[in-house]
Amino acid sequence: MAVYTDLTDEDLAGLLAQYDLGTPQAFKGIAEGVTNSNFLLETDRARFILTIYERRFVPAELPFFMDVMERLADRAFPAPRPIHAKNGAMITSVRGKPCAVVSFLNGISPRKPSAAQCRVAGEALGWMHKALEGFSGGRANGLGPHAWAGLVTPHLDVAESLRAGLAASAASDLAELAGAWPSDLPRGVVHADLFPDNMLLMGNALGGVIDFYFACVDFLAYDLAVCLNAWCFEPRGAFNLTKGQAMIAGYESVRALSTAERDALPILARGAAMRFFATRLHDWTEDNDGALVKPHDPLEYADKLDFHRRVKSAADYGA
Amino acid sequence: MAVYTDLTDEDLAGLLAQYDLGTPQAFKGIAEGVTNSNFLLETDRARFILTIYERRFVPAELPFFMDVMERLADRAFPAPRPIHAKNGAMITSVRGKPCAVVSFLNGISPRKPSAAQCRVAGEALGWMHKALEGFSGGRANGLGPHAWAGLVTPHLDVAESLRAGLAASAASDLAELAGAWPSDLPRGVVHADLFPDNMLLMGNALGGVIDFYFACVDFLAYDLAVCLNAWCFEPRGAFNLTKGQAMIAGYESVRALSTAERDALPILARGAAMRFFATRLHDWTEDNDGALVKPHDPLEYADKLDFHRRVKSAADYGA
Repeated sequence: MAVYTDLTDEDLAGLLAQYDLGTPQAFKGIAEGVTNSNFLLETDRARFILTIYERRFVPAELPFFMDVMERLADRAFPAPRPIHAKNGAMITSVRGKPCAVVSFLNGISPRKPSAAQCRVAGEALGWMHKALEGFSGGRANGLGPHAWAGLVTPHLDVAESLRAGLAASAASDLAELAGAWPSDLPRGVVHADLFPDNMLLMGNALGGVIDFYFACVDFLAYDLAVCLNAWCFEPRGAFNLTKGQAMIAGYESVRALSTAERDALPILARGAAMRFFATRLHDWTEDNDGALVKPHDPLEYADKLDFHRRVKSAADYGA
Repeated sequence: MAVYTDLTDEDLAGLLAQYDLGTPQAFKGIAEGVTNSNFLLETDRARFILTIYERRFVPAELPFFMDVMERLADRAFPAPRPIHAKNGAMITSVRGKPCAVVSFLNGISPRKPSAAQCRVAGEALGWMHKALEGFSGGRANGLGPHAWAGLVTPHLDVAESLRAGLAASAASDLAELAGAWPSDLPRGVVHADLFPDNMLLMGNALGGVIDFYFACVDFLAYDLAVCLNAWCFEPRGAFNLTKGQAMIAGYESVRALSTAERDALPILARGAAMRFFATRLHDWTEDNDGALVKPHDPLEYADKLDFHRRVKSAADYGA
C-alpha cells in the first residue's frame, strides 16, 4: 500500500490536458495497490482513479486489462470504466510511465467478509463471467500450473525453514497437481485475483470489482476456486463451510457449474492455493527490493494447502 | 506517506456508531501524513477525513489542535472542522489509538508553488493569524530555539559526513541564534509547519490549510519565516526574491508586520531553517524505526542556512 511516483504540478497539468475530465478539485495518493501508484482525482464533474503502472507491469498487456474493464462497464457490470484520452487512447503516460484514468466506484472492501458477503462475491463472479462471454481478447495465465514449480522449487529450503515438513509436502503437492490438473473445462476471461480487497461493497450490496491486472483466459471454475481460498477460510486453514456454500450458491444463481466443473473443484482449489503459496514464497525470499509493502505470509497458504489435501469431494467446499 | 493502522469492518462500524455521519459509501487509506494514518471516508451526506494518531503523538495535546481547527472553521477559515461524536467528544479511539474525524477540504497541494501561489499562502497565513487572535488555549513550541542544540549537537559527526564543514557552520549557527533570538515580538497561535503539502489550492484559490499538529504559541512572524523557507527557495539554497516579495505582500495585505517584526525577519528565517535542519538531521540518523517514509534530506536546509547566514536585512527576503 504505497505511492511510488510523486507527480509535480506540471506532470498533473500535462496529464490532464490529454483528457477531458473537468476542472480538478482534489488529488490524493491512495494507499491501494502493491505494484502501482493510485490517486483519487476529483473534478467538478466526477471522481476518477489515476493509476501509474510501476514495476512488474508488461506494458503490452495493459490494453487487454483495459478492454476487459471497458467490456464489463459496457455490460453495466460495476468495473472501473477506462476513460479515453482526447486522442482515443486508454493508456497514456506520465513521468515516462504508462498510466490510465478510470471511473471511481463507491464501496468499501470487507476486511472480514460475512457469509452474506461471500454470497455477494459469488454472484458478482458469476455475473462477471457471464458479462465476459464471447470476449475476443486473450491473455494466457502467467501464474498457471506450469509456473508453480519454478516459483516454489528454488525456495524449498526457505519453506522448510518456515515450517518443518513443508518442503516435502509442497513438492508432493506440485507433483500431484501436475498429474491431476484438468485439461477440458469451460474457459473464459477470469479475474484470477478476486480477494476481498478487490471488491467494493456497501453493506451487502455490490459496489464494484477492481484490480483486473491478473485477468487472463483460464478455467472459469478456477476463478471460483481462487475466491473460495480468498474469502472462505478462517485463520489457521479452517475452511468455513457456511461461507463456501454461500459463495457457490451465489455463483450458481448466475451461472450453474457443470458436473465436470463441480468434480474438479477440489483440484482447482488446491491449485489456486498453490498459486498464492508460490508467489508469496517467492516474494518472501526474493522480490522485496524497493517495495514499500511487507510481503504476505506464505504460511497462510501452506495452511490452506493442508486443508485441500484432505478434501474428498466438492461437497467439502459447500457445492 | 503511509497507512500504519488497518481497520477491520468491526473497527470501522464501531467507530461510526459513535458518530452521526450518515451511511458510509467509500473508505480509502490516503497517502498523507508521516506520523499518522489518514482515511477518506465518504457517506451519503459528506466527505470526511479520519485520522488515527500513531507514534510521536502526545494524546494530551490533541484537544489543543482540535480547538484550533474548530476555532478556525467557526471563523470561516478553511481549516478541517473537527466533527463531534454523539457524546460531544472531538477525540475518540479505535484499536486503542486516539482518532478524530474532520471535514474534507477540496484542493490540491502545489508541488512547486508559483509566485502567485506564494502570495495566496501569505494571505492565508495572515488570515489564519487574524482568525486565531484572542484564542485562549496555549501550547509551547516544543521545537523552538531551546530544542535545536539538543537535536543537532549529538549528530554533528553525521552532519560533517554529509558535507565537509557543516559541523562547524551548524555549531556557529546555533551559537549565533541563541545569542540573537528575539524575546519580544507579537505572539499568537502559529501553524509552525505550513509547507506546500499542508495547503490545498484550486489553481490560485485557497482550498484549505491542513495538518495543525505542530501548532503552538510563538512569534507570529516566525510562522511567516517558516513559510519563506518552505515556499520561496529554488533548489540548492537559491532564494527566489519574487516569491518572497509575493508571500510577504500577501501576508501584509491581511496583517501588517511591525518594524520590530520586519527587523527580526532574518534571524527568524535563519532559526526556522535551523528548526527543520535539526529535525531532519535527527530523523536521518535516529528515528527511522518502522517508518514507511524516507527521511527528508537535511542538506536542503543546510543550503538554506547558508543563504540566511549571508542575509543583510529583511529586504533580502522581499520585505
